[in-house]
Amino acid sequence: MIHILGVATTEFGELWKKSPRALAKQAAEGALEDAGLKISDIDALFVGNMLAGILGNQANLGSLFAEELGLSVPAIRVEGACASGGLALHSGVNGILSGQYKTVLALGVEKMTDSGQDEVTTGLMAAGSDSERMAGATFPGIYALMAQAYLEEFGISEETLAGVSVKNHYHGSLNDKAQFRRVVTVEDVMSSGRIADPLKLLDCSPISDGASAVVISSENLRKRKPVYVSASEVATDTLALHDRKSFTSLSSVVRASKNAYKKAGISPSDVDVSEIHDCFSIAEAIAVEDLGFSKRGEGAKDIATGKMTLGKGKVITNPSGGLKACGHPVGATGIKQIVEITQQLRGEAGGRQVKRAKIGLTHNVGGSGAVAVIHILKN
Amino acid sequence: MIHILGVATTEFGELWKKSPRALAKQAAEGALEDAGLKISDIDALFVGNMLAGILGNQANLGSLFAEELGLSVPAIRVEGACASGGLALHSGVNGILSGQYKTVLALGVEKMTDSGQDEVTTGLMAAGSDSERMAGATFPGIYALMAQAYLEEFGISEETLAGVSVKNHYHGSLNDKAQFRRVVTVEDVMSSGRIADPLKLLDCSPISDGASAVVISSENLRKRKPVYVSASEVATDTLALHDRKSFTSLSSVVRASKNAYKKAGISPSDVDVSEIHDCFSIAEAIAVEDLGFSKRGEGAKDIATGKMTLGKGKVITNPSGGLKACGHPVGATGIKQIVEITQQLRGEAGGRQVKRAKIGLTHNVGGSGAVAVIHILKN
Repeated sequence: MIHILGVATTEFGELWKKSPRALAKQAAEGALEDAGLKISDIDALFVGNMLAGILGNQANLGSLFAEELGLSVPAIRVEGACASGGLALHSGVNGILSGQYKTVLALGVEKMTDSGQDEVTTGLMAAGSDSERMAGATFPGIYALMAQAYLEEFGISEETLAGVSVKNHYHGSLNDKAQFRRVVTVEDVMSSGRIADPLKLLDCSPISDGASAVVISSENLRKRKPVYVSASEVATDTLALHDRKSFTSLSSVVRASKNAYKKAGISPSDVDVSEIHDCFSIAEAIAVEDLGFSKRGEGAKDIATGKMTLGKGKVITNPSGGLKACGHPVGATGIKQIVEITQQLRGEAGGRQVKRAKIGLTHNVGGSGAVAVIHILKN
Repeated sequence: MIHILGVATTEFGELWKKSPRALAKQAAEGALEDAGLKISDIDALFVGNMLAGILGNQANLGSLFAEELGLSVPAIRVEGACASGGLALHSGVNGILSGQYKTVLALGVEKMTDSGQDEVTTGLMAAGSDSERMAGATFPGIYALMAQAYLEEFGISEETLAGVSVKNHYHGSLNDKAQFRRVVTVEDVMSSGRIADPLKLLDCSPISDGASAVVISSENLRKRKPVYVSASEVATDTLALHDRKSFTSLSSVVRASKNAYKKAGISPSDVDVSEIHDCFSIAEAIAVEDLGFSKRGEGAKDIATGKMTLGKGKVITNPSGGLKACGHPVGATGIKQIVEITQQLRGEAGGRQVKRAKIGLTHNVGGSGAVAVIHILKN
């Protein structure tokens, strides 16, 4: 049994005054304080990070952050592009279930805004396939292809798709850690600059800095009722979109979530709250279908009509504001999702609290779906 | 119980005609063939790699190599500088012990010789501390400081230290996968170009390409007697040398090996054969002391007098030729060590076979000792 004992996240945004070390320390100390534990209670550290080597020529982040925290325990960096955070937690869960460690700190850290935009765009394409990279594709371009296919296949308007960002900005406006805390309208999305047709600026998640941390343990060292990790599942697919059978479904997500539902003994309709990897609006529309929250072709419509909005819907997606509004420091995202769902299941989410939330799910994706990590949490 | 079912390594060297994908595939298919398994028997893939992002802007190597091998199972890249390979196996072991996976492929891959030497040197310093990097230190420089301290503290001559490379080149001359297959003399080492005083060119391991793979499982799917992983232990230390109590002992190695001996229920004197992380000659001299094979200050002398040489010694170190002669494609090294020890314990090491080898140990280090991974294997 994996108990989540403590969680914390830094604010996400352009944090020019904070180094990766400082962000990591802030998140880790926050999670330890939340857990009521000391650093000496930690038996192993798993760090999720994608870009420190590429943008900052810094590798060996396990040892780096262990040193910063005063740890000399096993410390391992885990990388799977934008799913690095989810994979770090997955590795921590395996480490505990294996009996090697009792209490583990999973830390996601990314620092992106100090680098030039071209450098970051090129760096992010490190998660793409050779053919996509050599053709000059970027992730907005790749997700735009998915959006074009989706809008055409299901007869969906760009205005309907814009509903994803409208919802997530509304949720983000309630989150004091979010990079963007203002509401936007469908008109705002439609009139924002066109990035890669049909995606506009407000369909895209931002470049962000931030760190998030989770303390998990085989024992309930925390006096309060803990939240449990009921499933931690990973699946992979081809790197390139053009090698897949469908542009409007990610098989990695379908397989990882099926396995997760089975392990947790639940069905999609049991999920009360979910953090979704909405790197682009289209990603959330497809995800809610792949996860079984919506019927095929109805994800964008369900979101646009409020079925996943706080105070209205049955399953609330991205109460944190998601990648779109809360921000997307890529290695931190998968851990921040766990922080948000834990706070929701504890009833500590303040103005963005999902009522009677008992079961939560996180959906963390690397590349355009080359790897998917699904966690199911219960209280 | 972790069974090693199959092992394989590519040749190490300047492999300009082979891409990382091709190297990974060759090693993985070799390990599967050795195990008598099909790719569909693999439940998860762990990839050890340090530099693909920094030198080639390629991240997400778990998914990349999964795609190349036709896998869609969980695939995770693990990084801890030059200990990335050992950490990948450690993660695979944890994955099996956790019950999440039954059969795992651990793959170490590195491609270094296609890049410029300055680029590689800078890339490798990604494993160093900020202060060392900003002072312009390189790993030869950092290990030279350790060598200066060691030679002075224990009154050892450079000629005695040269014995490490002489032994490892002799062993490498018997290994058809080794990058260097020629014997060298103490005079050769002494007259080779001075790199960072007191280290000469022949005290240093080379830049290399290569890939190595291991298939491990909770079950003995192999008909032959398997080799077992009896311990898989990791420990960390500060990144920077100047933050440590000693320049002539690595506390990460001392702690990880103590834990490993305890888990495996053995003492250092029980080890018959060992692969050591001899990135520089001094590293092996210190390692054999930290591992308990030699008394403090006697490691270099024990090696120089043949106590760890094939056909002469009681515990044989680096029968493969080690990093010095077999080569050091950094992410592959930790897995290649497992390949070598497995072949030794099976009695399949040909001309470099250690007689009656029953217990083997691998010692894989990242940075100048910021992370250490120790595996103990038994047959």
